Amino acid sequence: MYIQDLVNKGGMKMKKIAVLTSGGDAPGMNAAIRAIMRVASRKGVEVYGIYDGYTGLVNGKIEKLKNIDVSEILSRGGTILGSSRLPEFKEDQVQMQAINQLKERGIEGLIVIGGDGTYRGALELSQKGICCVGIPGTIDNDINGTDETIGFHTALYNIVDAVNKLRDTSSSHHRCFVIEVMGNHKDSLALYSGIACGSEFIITKNTGYDEDYIIQMMDYYEKQQGKKHAIIIASEKMIDVEKLAERISKETHFSGRSIVLGHIQRGGSPVPQDRILASQMGQYAVELLLNHQSGYCVCKKDNHIVARKIEDALNDVSEIQERMYQLFNELV
Amino acid sequence: MYIQDLVNKGGMKMKKIAVLTSGGDAPGMNAAIRAIMRVASRKGVEVYGIYDGYTGLVNGKIEKLKNIDVSEILSRGGTILGSSRLPEFKEDQVQMQAINQLKERGIEGLIVIGGDGTYRGALELSQKGICCVGIPGTIDNDINGTDETIGFHTALYNIVDAVNKLRDTSSSHHRCFVIEVMGNHKDSLALYSGIACGSEFIITKNTGYDEDYIIQMMDYYEKQQGKKHAIIIASEKMIDVEKLAERISKETHFSGRSIVLGHIQRGGSPVPQDRILASQMGQYAVELLLNHQSGYCVCKKDNHIVARKIEDALNDVSEIQERMYQLFNELV
Amino acid sequence: MYIQDLVNKGGMKMKKIAVLTSGGDAPGMNAAIRAIMRVASRKGVEVYGIYDGYTGLVNGKIEKLKNIDVSEILSRGGTILGSSRLPEFKEDQVQMQAINQLKERGIEGLIVIGGDGTYRGALELSQKGICCVGIPGTIDNDINGTDETIGFHTALYNIVDAVNKLRDTSSSHHRCFVIEVMGNHKDSLALYSGIACGSEFIITKNTGYDEDYIIQMMDYYEKQQGKKHAIIIASEKMIDVEKLAERISKETHFSGRSIVLGHIQRGGSPVPQDRILASQMGQYAVELLLNHQSGYCVCKKDNHIVARKIEDALNDVSEIQERMYQLFNELV
Amino acid sequence: MYIQDLVNKGGMKMKKIAVLTSGGDAPGMNAAIRAIMRVASRKGVEVYGIYDGYTGLVNGKIEKLKNIDVSEILSRGGTILGSSRLPEFKEDQVQMQAINQLKERGIEGLIVIGGDGTYRGALELSQKGICCVGIPGTIDNDINGTDETIGFHTALYNIVDAVNKLRDTSSSHHRCFVIEVMGNHKDSLALYSGIACGSEFIITKNTGYDEDYIIQMMDYYEKQQGKKHAIIIASEKMIDVEKLAERISKETHFSGRSIVLGHIQRGGSPVPQDRILASQMGQYAVELLLNHQSGYCVCKKDNHIVARKIEDALNDVSEIQERMYQLFNELV
Repeated sequence: MYIQDLVNKGGMKMKKIAVLTSGGDAPGMNAAIRAIMRVASRKGVEVYGIYDGYTGLVNGKIEKLKNIDVSEILSRGGTILGSSRLPEFKEDQVQMQAINQLKERGIEGLIVIGGDGTYRGALELSQKGICCVGIPGTIDNDINGTDETIGFHTALYNIVDAVNKLRDTSSSHHRCFVIEVMGNHKDSLALYSGIACGSEFIITKNTGYDEDYIIQMMDYYEKQQGKKHAIIIASEKMIDVEKLAERISKETHFSGRSIVLGHIQRGGSPVPQDRILASQMGQYAVELLLNHQSGYCVCKKDNHIVARKIEDALNDVSEIQERMYQLFNELV
Repeated sequence: MYIQDLVNKGGMKMKKIAVLTSGGDAPGMNAAIRAIMRVASRKGVEVYGIYDGYTGLVNGKIEKLKNIDVSEILSRGGTILGSSRLPEFKEDQVQMQAINQLKERGIEGLIVIGGDGTYRGALELSQKGICCVGIPGTIDNDINGTDETIGFHTALYNIVDAVNKLRDTSSSHHRCFVIEVMGNHKDSLALYSGIACGSEFIITKNTGYDEDYIIQMMDYYEKQQGKKHAIIIASEKMIDVEKLAERISKETHFSGRSIVLGHIQRGGSPVPQDRILASQMGQYAVELLLNHQSGYCVCKKDNHIVARKIEDALNDVSEIQERMYQLFNELV
Repeated sequence: MYIQDLVNKGGMKMKKIAVLTSGGDAPGMNAAIRAIMRVASRKGVEVYGIYDGYTGLVNGKIEKLKNIDVSEILSRGGTILGSSRLPEFKEDQVQMQAINQLKERGIEGLIVIGGDGTYRGALELSQKGICCVGIPGTIDNDINGTDETIGFHTALYNIVDAVNKLRDTSSSHHRCFVIEVMGNHKDSLALYSGIACGSEFIITKNTGYDEDYIIQMMDYYEKQQGKKHAIIIASEKMIDVEKLAERISKETHFSGRSIVLGHIQRGGSPVPQDRILASQMGQYAVELLLNHQSGYCVCKKDNHIVARKIEDALNDVSEIQERMYQLFNELV
Repeated sequence: MYIQDLVNKGGMKMKKIAVLTSGGDAPGMNAAIRAIMRVASRKGVEVYGIYDGYTGLVNGKIEKLKNIDVSEILSRGGTILGSSRLPEFKEDQVQMQAINQLKERGIEGLIVIGGDGTYRGALELSQKGICCVGIPGTIDNDINGTDETIGFHTALYNIVDAVNKLRDTSSSHHRCFVIEVMGNHKDSLALYSGIACGSEFIITKNTGYDEDYIIQMMDYYEKQQGKKHAIIIASEKMIDVEKLAERISKETHFSGRSIVLGHIQRGGSPVPQDRILASQMGQYAVELLLNHQSGYCVCKKDNHIVARKIEDALNDVSEIQERMYQLFNELV
C-alpha cells in the first residue's frame, strides 16, 4: 500500500516540473518549495512556480523559479506562491485549460501542496495524463494516510504558546478559559494541544459534548480539588465558546472567558519539525516525479517518508487516535 | 503638581505596610510586589499581602509576606495576590470594615496597584486616615498623570507579536485583517500598535470611524499601490470587527478576516520595560509611604518617577496624544 | 526486541513507586513526572519523588508527591526533582544503600529519567532485584533504541530560534556565523538544526572536518553565488569555533563570527512535542512497572511507544542517520 | 541646549536626501529608514539609500529608494542598507570624495544612523557644508544626550529572554550563571538587564569588580538564604566569565557556568519600543533636514523627541545612572 524505495516507471528524464500551493496556507509550505527547487536543480531539472494555486495554473500565472527566489524563505510562514480556492477545477474543461498551460511550457510534472481538496485536483490531472504528486500541507493534520502534515506542528506550538500566556492571568482571577482551535475534519489540534497544555477538558467530535457534565466537573475541580484556573479546548464548529463561558460564570465558582484563536494558529515562522518534514517531503516528491510515479501523495508513516496512491489516501478511513484520547483521560 | 524629592511629613516610623492588586491583572504587578517587599524589608518594615483585592481587604484575607514568596515572581505575569472587583467598596460601612482589618493587624500603610477604580478606593481610605499610595497597574495605559502604566508595554508586545504571526499568512491570501485590541478609556494600545505594526488604519475614539472611507482606501491600497495584505487595528467597543471584515470581502479585492485578540494581550511574562517600571514604582511607593505621604499615586512623567495627588490625577484631562496620531498618519 | 503490548509478569500489585531524574536536565522531564504521578494516582499507587538524582536516592532525600506538586509543572523546563551526577553509584555498596532506602519505605518500583549513564544505574538496580524502568530524558537524542528523547525537540527549537535572530544582523554585515551546538555522542542537534536553519555547512563526527574545503566553499558561496551571509553549525568538541571564524575573516570575503550557544539550548518551556512525548512515556513507564517488567526502557520507535531491554538499548549500535545527511547535502 | 520646535534656517526646499546606516547594526534601523522614506515622500522629497555605510558613500553605492523597498522592513532586524566601518573616513580627501558623490546626484541632505563614530563623520561632513543629521542607532545605549538609542530595548529583551531560559535549568542543578552582555562605553545593558532579571550581581565599570566579595556573597546566598540558583551579569570587557564561573564552582556550593551571549543580543525582530522610537526619530530627522538644521542629532530626552548639536552630544559627560544603580542594590 505504501511505497518507499523507488523504481523508475519508465519515460524520458523530465526537464521541467512545476509546483503550486492550494487551500489554506500552512507554515512550512515555503520550506517544501525550497526543497523541491534545490533538489530538482541539482539534478538539472527546471522548476516553475505557479502562483495562486489552481487559479494561477488555469490562467497561466507561471514563472520559472530562480535560486534567489527560495534563498530566504525557509523560515517564513505562509507561501510565497500564494494560494486560492477554485471550486470550478472539478470541471473537465477547466482541467484541460490547466493541462494546456503546462504543455505549452513543456512542463512534464506537477507537485501540488495542500489538503484533500488539492489532492483531488491532482488526482484528476494525473488521470488525464499529467504526472502529478501531492504533498500534505495543512495545519489541521486531517489527511488520511500520513501521520503528520506540514504546518501541524507550528499550529500546535502557536496554540500552546497562547495558552501559556493565558495561564498566569487566569489564576489571578479564578478563571476558566474556553478556547476554540482549528482542526477541520479531524480533531488533532484540540486533542494534541489538550495534552500539551494540560487542559481540563477537550470538546471534539470524538468526545462529544455533554454540557451539563462539564459544568458539574468544573464545579468539582474548583470546590473539591481547589483548582485556581481551568482550560477547556474545543474544536471549531463544535460549540459556541462564548455561551459555554457564560454558563460557567453563572453556574460554577470560576469566572468563564472565551477566546477564538483563529488565524494566529497558522501564523509565524515554522517550527523546526515543520521545516524538516517539509524538506523531506519536498525531496521525496521530486524523486517520485522523476521516477514517473504519477498519482501519488507523500506521507509520513511510522516515522518514514513514503508514498501512497492518492485515491487510497482519500478513501481511507481515518485511523482513530484512540491511545491519545486515552492518554488525555488518564492525565486529567 | 508633581513631587519628586521626598520630605517626611512627620509621624512615627512605620513597621507594617500592606499591598493589594485590584481590577484587571497586568503583567509586571508581581515585579512591583517584589520590589515593595524587597525595599521595605531592607528598611526593617514588614509587608503584608492582601489577597483578591479590596474583597480580601474587607474579609481579612491578609498574610505576612516572606522573602520566599516573592523570590521567583519577577518573570511571572498576572498577580500572585489575585485580584477582584468590589463595587460595594464605595460604601462607607465597607470601607470601615477594611480599615478595621488593617488596624487589627497594626498595619499603618497601604499600597494599591491597579487602575482608576482602584485609585478611588485608595483615595477614600486615605481621606479616612489610612496612609495610602497608588501604583498604576493596567495594560490600557489609561491613567491620567502617568505616561506609562505597568503592563502596557507587555500588552503592546503581545499585539505586535500576534500581528507578526498574521503577516505571512495574510500575504499568501491577499488578506486584510481587522484586529480588535483592548485599551479601555484611552486608545493607547491601538495607536501605539498601529505605529509599531505599520497598520494601514487605526480605528479609535480619536480618529472616529468612517466605514465608507476605509472601504474606499482599502480598494485604493489594493489596486493602486499593489498591497498584498493590509492590517486594520480597532480599539475595543468601537466597531464589530467581523462585520467590517465581511464588507471588505464584498467590496474590495482583499479577503477580509477579523480577530479579537482578547486576554492574550494581558498574558505572558512581562517584558523588561514593565519589570523595570514596576520595580521603580514599587520602590518609590515604599518611600512615599515611609514618608507618610498619603493620597498620592506614583507616576512616570517625562521619564522621571514622581508622585501626584490621586485626586489631581483622577480629575486631570487626559493629554491628547497628538504627535503620535500625526506620526501614524505620516507613516501610512 | 521491542515490546508493545504488556503482559503482567506476575507479582503483587505495587502500592508505592518512586521517580528520579538524573544527568543533564532536559525540558519535558517535568511533564514526565506529572504523567507518572497522574497515571499512577488513578490506579491507586503512591508516587515518591527522589530529589537530586541517585545522590538523593542514596541519601534518602525521598518524599511522597502530592497532586499539588505536579499541578503547574507541565510547562516548566528543568526538573522539579533536581538532578546530579554520582559516579560512585557504580559501586555495589552504594547501590545497596540505595536499595535499602527504597525498601525502608516500602517502595517497590523505580522510574529513572535521564541518559545512558542513568540507564546503567537502573540496570544494576534491576539486576539486584528492584523493579526498574528507564525513560530517555536528554536534549542530545543520543540514546540507542529510541528515535526521540525528551528535550530534543525543545533544544532544536532553541537553536533554530537563535539562528533566526542571527540572520538579519548577519546579512547586514556580510557575516558568516560559526555556531557550536550540543549533541554529545550523536550529532542529531547539529544535523537536524542544519537542515531546519538551512545552514551552509555542518561539522559533525559523521561529516568530519576539512577546514580547507570549508574555506574554499565559503569563498565560492560569496563570490559565485552572491550569498550575503552564511551559517556553519558545529557539534560540540569538534572544532574551536572562534578559530574557524577568524580564518574565515582572513581568507574569504565574509566577516567570520563565532558563538557557543551553551545552556540556552536546554532552557525554556518545553515545546508541545516534548510535553506530549514525555506524557506518553511517563504513562507507559507506569504500565511497565505495574506489570513488573523490570530492566526495560521506554522508546519511541517508528512512531510507537514501546519498551526494550535496557542492556539491548545500551549495546545497540546506533543507527546512522544516513537519509538525513543526504537530505542536508541535497538542500545546500 | 535642546531644540524641539523647528524654525526653518532658510535655504531652498530640498528635493533629494540620502540615508545611511553605519557601525554595528541595531534592530529598528529599518524602521527608521522606512519612516524617513515615508515622511519624505509625502513631502515630495526623493530619498536615496546609501549601501554599506560610509564605504558605500565614498564609492557611490547609492540608489534611489522606492516605496516597495521599505514596505516589509518594519519588523526586520538588521539594516537593509548594510553597514560597515571605515576608519579612513577621518581623512579630508576621503570626505571630499563622499561629498562629490552626493553633489553629483544633487543630494542636498544626509541622515546617518549609528553610534558616536557615525556621528563624528556626520559632524565633519556638516562642517564641510553638507546638511547632515544623526539618529542614534546602537544597542549599547551609549550615546550622550539621548536617554534611549534605537536597538537598546530589543537587546534588553533578548538578554532577559535568554536569562528566562536559563532559570529553570539553573535551579535543577543548583547553578550560578555568569553571563556576559554587550554595552560598550556605558553599562546600560548590564544594569537594566540586572534589574529586569533580578540578578544577584552586576559587574560594570561603575560597580567595579571585587571577586572575593562576590565569592563570599554567593556563598552567603546559598547557605544563608537557601537560594537554588543565581545570576551574575557582567558587562563586556570587564572579566573573564569562564574563570569566575570556575572559581564559583570551586569555592561555593553553587555549580558555576558561564555564557557569552554575543550577537544574539542584536538579533531578532525589533520590539515595539524600538520600532516606535525609530519611527519618531526618522520623522524628526526629516523635519530637521528640511528645515536646514545641519549638524544636529535626534535625541529622546525626558520622553520628548528633540535635537541637539552633535558636538555637544559628543562632548557631553555622560550622566551617571545613579538612581538605577541604587534601585538595583535595593532589590537584591
